[in-house]
Amino acid sequence: MRTVYMDHAATNPLHPDVLDAMMPYFKEDFANPLSVYEPAVTAKAAIEKAREQVAALINAKPNEIIFTASGAESNNFAIKGAAIANQNKGKHIITTKTEHHSITNSARFLERSDFTVTFLPVDNNGIVDPAIVEKAIIDETILISINHANTEIGTIEPISDIAKIARAKNITFHTDAVASVGNIPVDVRELGVDLLSLSAHQFYGPKGASAVYLKEGTRIMPLIYGGIQEGGRRAGTENVPAIVGMGKAAEMARDNLSERIGHNIKLRDKLIKSVTAIEKVRLTGHPEKRLPGHASFVVEYIEGEAMLLMLGAYGIYAASGSACTSKALKASPVLTSIGIPSHMAHGSVVFTIGMETTENDIDYFIEKFEPIIMKLREMSPIAE
Amino acid sequence: MRTVYMDHAATNPLHPDVLDAMMPYFKEDFANPLSVYEPAVTAKAAIEKAREQVAALINAKPNEIIFTASGAESNNFAIKGAAIANQNKGKHIITTKTEHHSITNSARFLERSDFTVTFLPVDNNGIVDPAIVEKAIIDETILISINHANTEIGTIEPISDIAKIARAKNITFHTDAVASVGNIPVDVRELGVDLLSLSAHQFYGPKGASAVYLKEGTRIMPLIYGGIQEGGRRAGTENVPAIVGMGKAAEMARDNLSERIGHNIKLRDKLIKSVTAIEKVRLTGHPEKRLPGHASFVVEYIEGEAMLLMLGAYGIYAASGSACTSKALKASPVLTSIGIPSHMAHGSVVFTIGMETTENDIDYFIEKFEPIIMKLREMSPIAE
Repeated sequence: MRTVYMDHAATNPLHPDVLDAMMPYFKEDFANPLSVYEPAVTAKAAIEKAREQVAALINAKPNEIIFTASGAESNNFAIKGAAIANQNKGKHIITTKTEHHSITNSARFLERSDFTVTFLPVDNNGIVDPAIVEKAIIDETILISINHANTEIGTIEPISDIAKIARAKNITFHTDAVASVGNIPVDVRELGVDLLSLSAHQFYGPKGASAVYLKEGTRIMPLIYGGIQEGGRRAGTENVPAIVGMGKAAEMARDNLSERIGHNIKLRDKLIKSVTAIEKVRLTGHPEKRLPGHASFVVEYIEGEAMLLMLGAYGIYAASGSACTSKALKASPVLTSIGIPSHMAHGSVVFTIGMETTENDIDYFIEKFEPIIMKLREMSPIAE
Repeated sequence: MRTVYMDHAATNPLHPDVLDAMMPYFKEDFANPLSVYEPAVTAKAAIEKAREQVAALINAKPNEIIFTASGAESNNFAIKGAAIANQNKGKHIITTKTEHHSITNSARFLERSDFTVTFLPVDNNGIVDPAIVEKAIIDETILISINHANTEIGTIEPISDIAKIARAKNITFHTDAVASVGNIPVDVRELGVDLLSLSAHQFYGPKGASAVYLKEGTRIMPLIYGGIQEGGRRAGTENVPAIVGMGKAAEMARDNLSERIGHNIKLRDKLIKSVTAIEKVRLTGHPEKRLPGHASFVVEYIEGEAMLLMLGAYGIYAASGSACTSKALKASPVLTSIGIPSHMAHGSVVFTIGMETTENDIDYFIEKFEPIIMKLREMSPIAE
């Protein structure tokens, strides 16, 4: 069966060149980097090379990169670590209603530890207004966390404007850039952030390798205590092959970024044009300020789940809401936050394109999608 | 150059059959297990199969296994998660002076959060006396954590006796079994523990895959919040290849355990016999109740670091103290706890044998080791 993978926001295939770079560390170079003999020195050097490659992708210094094992771990570490390290200055945190669950649920954990959290609204395109952030700041505010790009609706936030406000008030600023790094240019100096989360499998690197950018001088407490790995900030025997893979994937993303963006935008725009031409289908997220490969919609009168099943029967793989909530069965808080009524939010469907997606794939999708909608609407008790 | 890897306590080579089992998940089966289409279902099924394999190794139920990314993460999750989940019942924790840093430093973190921690002594063989544990229990004690086997001195603790005491008083009991699982029989029902940490790279599985055994009904708070992975107890996109590898490695460890034990004990005993025949060299840890492949010593008048360098020049790779403290440059707290004076603790050297170690390797090591000691002692200003 023909398959068309259109769920790059959930995960990406591992690039074969990345796997090749990883292989020696599954074989002869298996030593623990913390040991003192020669093969351990080789493994340690491989990690430091990867650190330079990841740093270069986001214009950080290598010593500002801390490796973790997932985007969720990066977000938990950044939010809880910065909050606890700064709690003597205050216990108020600002974030939004449209963050990834790893941010939202870390914030709720902090609420149970006597922190206060303000969850800011977004506009109907999913954009956070910097003026609203500024107004939410109180004397006790110690941390602001706003995602760079939203994985469910693709909207890219005005992070540099918001970070400027935080900086002026000496408040630590974090951005969850898991959905953006490797997909659009991300420059931590231009953004002006103190902390940033990124994940390798979002740019053709392996699962199990992610990182936090920690600006020099930023205070943080470890999430995982133990040995002296990562400068004592994140313990645990390093997953050397995965880290090496993340480095290689970062290097490739940097080298090919404009080409990837051009490819993704072209196919995405074709897809959006064809899907929005269908009656009672609405694009979600910002029409222009969105991730290059990201096309998200709500389709009236039908369920996202039903669309996914019928698409799956044609080998077309897509998502409904965030991959991390696809089994939660309640209306996505991101969609309700951008003003989609909860009965319509169930008709959410998200197509995310990657560099191996072809124009033929898009044509095949277009050919199948409208008939699926029509068929489902015929069966729908609520369709007109 | 000939190489003899004798640092299996730091990490193990990945078994080629384990790597083979992982490969499809680096290639065609890359989908995010949380998605709903067929390839995601395949990935999810692979994780559940691995969960069964890991459960079988320690006689747990599959739903009692929670995957993590490192032994350190498992220990942080178990200790901090159980402490926070039970803090309404009391805020006292009991552990020992000879735990891995991921336990000790998690306990110190809890001390800063108003918990009280009792660090118990051990005897000169590194054994924790169950009677001392019982005496340390107070009304506020909610958690006891004692390692199953010590990675630095190889001593195996009487966990089932201690767990019985904890159970009688309704106190959650955790054991760090990272050094033991896959190397000796570990049966969570026989041990009678509520929580147990284990790590794949300690039994020829990949780095980046570890787990916590969580007995049904045991209360715990997540360390990493986010999506609904691992029953909502540990968020983050699953590292599918690593988890699959852990499952395969667990299955192989279970199938070959007695063979591995026999092999390791035979070579270890030969090594211990030859090394303890050298003047002023002392075995550390228990002479019988120790890990099969584990041989650890203190050598008077010389530095562990110097021995490692000279062994390394012959391609023999070993450790001095725990891999995680080898760069800390202070006397190992494990060695001072078993009564080794701190100036002698610097002469620590640890040889850990694995299933690919040969009798020839041991002969080669024996041939080189005594001359190295003699040469270093000649140069030592403190040798007699």
